[in-house]
Amino acid sequence: MRSVSVVGVGQLPVRKQATASLRELGVRAAQLALEDAGVDRVAVLFAGNMLSDELQGQKHVATLIASEAGLHGIEALQVRAATATGAAALRMAYLAVASGDVELALAVGFEKMSTAPPTSALAKAMDAELEVPTGATLISQNADLMRAYLERYDVAYESFVNFAINAHRNATMNPYARFQSEISAKEVLESRIVNAPIRLFDCSPICDGAAAVVLAPTDAATAFTDYPVRVLTGTVATDWLRVEDRPEPLAVEAARLSAQKAYAQTGLTPDDVDFFEVHDAFSIMACLLLEAAGFAEQGHGWRLAAEGEIFREGRLPIATLGGLKARGHPIGATALYQTCEIVQQLTGQAGTNQLAHAEIGMLQSVGGAAATVLTHLFAA
Amino acid sequence: MRSVSVVGVGQLPVRKQATASLRELGVRAAQLALEDAGVDRVAVLFAGNMLSDELQGQKHVATLIASEAGLHGIEALQVRAATATGAAALRMAYLAVASGDVELALAVGFEKMSTAPPTSALAKAMDAELEVPTGATLISQNADLMRAYLERYDVAYESFVNFAINAHRNATMNPYARFQSEISAKEVLESRIVNAPIRLFDCSPICDGAAAVVLAPTDAATAFTDYPVRVLTGTVATDWLRVEDRPEPLAVEAARLSAQKAYAQTGLTPDDVDFFEVHDAFSIMACLLLEAAGFAEQGHGWRLAAEGEIFREGRLPIATLGGLKARGHPIGATALYQTCEIVQQLTGQAGTNQLAHAEIGMLQSVGGAAATVLTHLFAA
Repeated sequence: MRSVSVVGVGQLPVRKQATASLRELGVRAAQLALEDAGVDRVAVLFAGNMLSDELQGQKHVATLIASEAGLHGIEALQVRAATATGAAALRMAYLAVASGDVELALAVGFEKMSTAPPTSALAKAMDAELEVPTGATLISQNADLMRAYLERYDVAYESFVNFAINAHRNATMNPYARFQSEISAKEVLESRIVNAPIRLFDCSPICDGAAAVVLAPTDAATAFTDYPVRVLTGTVATDWLRVEDRPEPLAVEAARLSAQKAYAQTGLTPDDVDFFEVHDAFSIMACLLLEAAGFAEQGHGWRLAAEGEIFREGRLPIATLGGLKARGHPIGATALYQTCEIVQQLTGQAGTNQLAHAEIGMLQSVGGAAATVLTHLFAA
Repeated sequence: MRSVSVVGVGQLPVRKQATASLRELGVRAAQLALEDAGVDRVAVLFAGNMLSDELQGQKHVATLIASEAGLHGIEALQVRAATATGAAALRMAYLAVASGDVELALAVGFEKMSTAPPTSALAKAMDAELEVPTGATLISQNADLMRAYLERYDVAYESFVNFAINAHRNATMNPYARFQSEISAKEVLESRIVNAPIRLFDCSPICDGAAAVVLAPTDAATAFTDYPVRVLTGTVATDWLRVEDRPEPLAVEAARLSAQKAYAQTGLTPDDVDFFEVHDAFSIMACLLLEAAGFAEQGHGWRLAAEGEIFREGRLPIATLGGLKARGHPIGATALYQTCEIVQQLTGQAGTNQLAHAEIGMLQSVGGAAATVLTHLFAA
């Protein structure tokens, strides 16, 4: 496989009740990424979108965006992995370029969730026959995980507040973020309980957004940008779809396997990772991923938050431009936003949020209650 | 890119009102293909399914099938291209192996359409904002194409009957086919009008089914099977999503571009193709694809049918084991069925339907009203 680099990025502000239609979101993000790469065409477009079947009545979204963006004739396919869908589009674009089959690939994610309640469509990420009928939702499954974690490791809820505080602090200077104001520990602790023990500030918001990246062979990357970022690897692993089938749900096996594959393929270790764009759709998931990806022992992930190691000045900064919690989690677009942010950090373009040391960045994206997890590693 | 071969195939009988659930269909087909390849595991599974969001309330189908098939931990992603979705899964599996990233890839398609009316979900293959509100459906769009074709080229409806007659004749000896009885010209001509000028026998049926293939590097293929079949290429092209935006809808630009790419990449010409597993969801689409793929001049595709050249003994046999019309069109599975059938023909395992000359086989799969078309070429 040949080396692949990000040579163009584009992101729209994450907002709620945006006036733009789904297609406008996707087209604009695609065009921004193409402009950033200085090209008006790519060989293939991979679309990341999870909810348009239900929310927009649209099932042909890759060709829709290609068609509307003026990319007539190109290859266009949709890729999905439930709530990790954006990362699946990135994975396919990576494979397409790595294979040598195409020179330029566009991964574009877009989601418009705010116009209709997405909860029941989101729940389809679980087992429709055996989980959904029990009344479970993705929120309730994360609540179950958090409750089990707090009990098993005898941790207080208060130990988690820094996940939200960090995300909101990092989002304040990100113009693309949904929320741009800091929050206090008191606000987190007093926020309403959504699904016990999960409180409002433990949850990423319902929102609209789109982001895109252009990938090219690394040896041609500087033809398109002065700031190429290598995609060192993209890996995917799955777990039993039903949480109750997993012998050790708190171990987040798919995240562990996916990270291990990524480390094995690159020769890197967790110590080499300078920052981690984590899937903090819920505070508990961020905590579990810190453990599964090898940054903390099982049962100790919360300490990285509690001890401030996840802040920008800490040992392993996470959600450095707001994360899912504060930048927002427009599902199919999320991992593409994360990729844009990793590119910002690795190329010194993260502004006031710039990390002092940013040579290797990690991205993890979680499908459903961690039944599918994708890991990508990037280097400047 | 390295050469890729099919080393295992599996298909279930296409039926209506099957007692099996969607997941059972997918799992069984996957297991049959794995058994055929003599393996119990692959690195990656690509799932082809179009309608489960609406019909089964399930949006995490790749991981569902991996999980239920006992393939714990493997990579699993869903790929879609509306009604060409099965071919999209094949394309991704091909890329994954061709890239060198994985050794064994499984493409599995499954669709359960018969338990709920799928028409409105199928219509989401069109433009949800600008086509669906006009009352258009995929059937009405194909009817429009057929009406335009008959008028423009001054062809009689009767000239099309052999598309259905050929498909049904070829299906009689295919145990996996939905319909296994011949039909007469009289029956076609007297069948009820579904959407003028399209009659019942111009339409593929609503049905349930699943099929799967295992791909491996060609240089390792004989370790898995005595009958490997090379995937010479897989290409994708798109057209304007809305039919009315196309300057020449009857030219089926996406099919033409996709076929041209496939010919260019392999150095083959239409003359080299011994048989064509065509996307005969509607008779008119089969006719248009014969033209777009280079087997007939524009306006002359119907002659290949009328003159019997599409029969098994003709110049370009199509739908050699029943096609979408008579084997059936369980959307996400269809292109995988076609691949299984191409493997049967290329390896001399097509029984009484075996073609005398079968060295190069072509597969085309159509998304929506031909907004996305995939072409694959295979050789023994």
